[in-house]
Amino acid sequence: MLIPFNKYHGTGNDFIMIDNRELRLELKQSQISQLCNRRFGIGADGLILLQVQNEVVEMVYYNADGAPSSMCGNGGRCFVTFCQKLEVLSENGEFLAVDGMHPFKMVDGLVSLKMGDVSAIETINDAVYMDTGSPHYVTMVEDVLEIDLINDARKVRYNNRFSAEGTNVNFVEIMDGVTHIRTYERGVEDETLSCGTGATACAIAMHSLGEVSELEVPVKVLGGKLIISFKPNADGSYTDIWLTGPTTTVFAGETELPA
Amino acid sequence: MLIPFNKYHGTGNDFIMIDNRELRLELKQSQISQLCNRRFGIGADGLILLQVQNEVVEMVYYNADGAPSSMCGNGGRCFVTFCQKLEVLSENGEFLAVDGMHPFKMVDGLVSLKMGDVSAIETINDAVYMDTGSPHYVTMVEDVLEIDLINDARKVRYNNRFSAEGTNVNFVEIMDGVTHIRTYERGVEDETLSCGTGATACAIAMHSLGEVSELEVPVKVLGGKLIISFKPNADGSYTDIWLTGPTTTVFAGETELPA
Repeated sequence: MLIPFNKYHGTGNDFIMIDNRELRLELKQSQISQLCNRRFGIGADGLILLQVQNEVVEMVYYNADGAPSSMCGNGGRCFVTFCQKLEVLSENGEFLAVDGMHPFKMVDGLVSLKMGDVSAIETINDAVYMDTGSPHYVTMVEDVLEIDLINDARKVRYNNRFSAEGTNVNFVEIMDGVTHIRTYERGVEDETLSCGTGATACAIAMHSLGEVSELEVPVKVLGGKLIISFKPNADGSYTDIWLTGPTTTVFAGETELPA
Repeated sequence: MLIPFNKYHGTGNDFIMIDNRELRLELKQSQISQLCNRRFGIGADGLILLQVQNEVVEMVYYNADGAPSSMCGNGGRCFVTFCQKLEVLSENGEFLAVDGMHPFKMVDGLVSLKMGDVSAIETINDAVYMDTGSPHYVTMVEDVLEIDLINDARKVRYNNRFSAEGTNVNFVEIMDGVTHIRTYERGVEDETLSCGTGATACAIAMHSLGEVSELEVPVKVLGGKLIISFKPNADGSYTDIWLTGPTTTVFAGETELPA
């Protein structure tokens, strides 16, 4: 069975995008991990199916390991561009993801995606922990570009608190007024060039810690630049959270579905 | 400019293949490295152009870093399958690569490629060094699947003898009669899942050291299995060398040429 697909990336976070509006595809976990394999398959951080049920446009997201995953911000932004090209969505609208409906808008060629509210920010030693659609642990460090990221992140990801469910782990340094971050993603179990929910968590963490005062925070990730805007509330929650950045169509292709 | 391409792999060694018979493409090094980038581009160990000049079919091979490279055995085997699909070559024939003409044949779905003769095998301490189209350093080790390959290989690749030109570095262990190898490739500057010229060098090295007596040696690489056959000569040279293994078409695509 020959499957048409498109390959997208958002600041270096890359995705296989498949139009499944006819609901022909029922992918097994092993097929998804094979398609996402960077040597034997197409290669990607994740795979996204476009589905429509009862006129609701739905993004069905899987990690590279083939398991259904929590919300992916960059995946959602790429999904918007994919749906616009197919004329399934226009420049403003909303779609359904695993954590609920996501309004979006396209402004000046950048895709802005509304993220779920952050109701609680937990303090763990000198780090903060929150859920921005996916769970994120955020620590400030010196020399963020030089740290031994994998080893440092695994100490958190596999500690008593997180080993069962896993957590994403972010390291932040503010240099010359710019928030630089690096993210270790569970599921990928490696550093990625960009993580949208991670950038969102880092921007909110820096605001909650008083490290930045703006309500629109540019965040430099390894693969480019994202902008996070939000509204802080008196009860410590954050609402009206938007993730903004570029999306890139890399190629269109057709592949045989793996056995 | 929209470029059609095909993606192949040979035992996990993967290539972007482009039909350039009309000689429309003149790729810059930066464009090739962008196309081979696994996050921002298509992603591959190398890029191969099919060209035909004066009725001679030519494989033009570039490493993932965008530089023209020495011979690539798995790339050559994938090139044969690509050319057969385009009906540019049949099931037997030959093509031109950077190190000369390469006869090939397809038997039982596997592609066999004739490699250049090995005229000299140099002994360096307890390792051997030879040119199988690309330079290869071969050492026997214990627990080949457990070694710290990158660090061990870099001690050789960047030593006084090799630092300027570079060398590929192979580690071999014979387990239950099967030759297991792992290869660090210069240019990629990392381990790859399979290296055809490396597997060829390892099989000949094992024969020259008396570790195997067969003239047809199965070699297990991380990405699958290759078979190397050869004729040893009284003067220490090896001729009639053939590299055999599977090739896989992964997908067909179209991409914009990067700026």
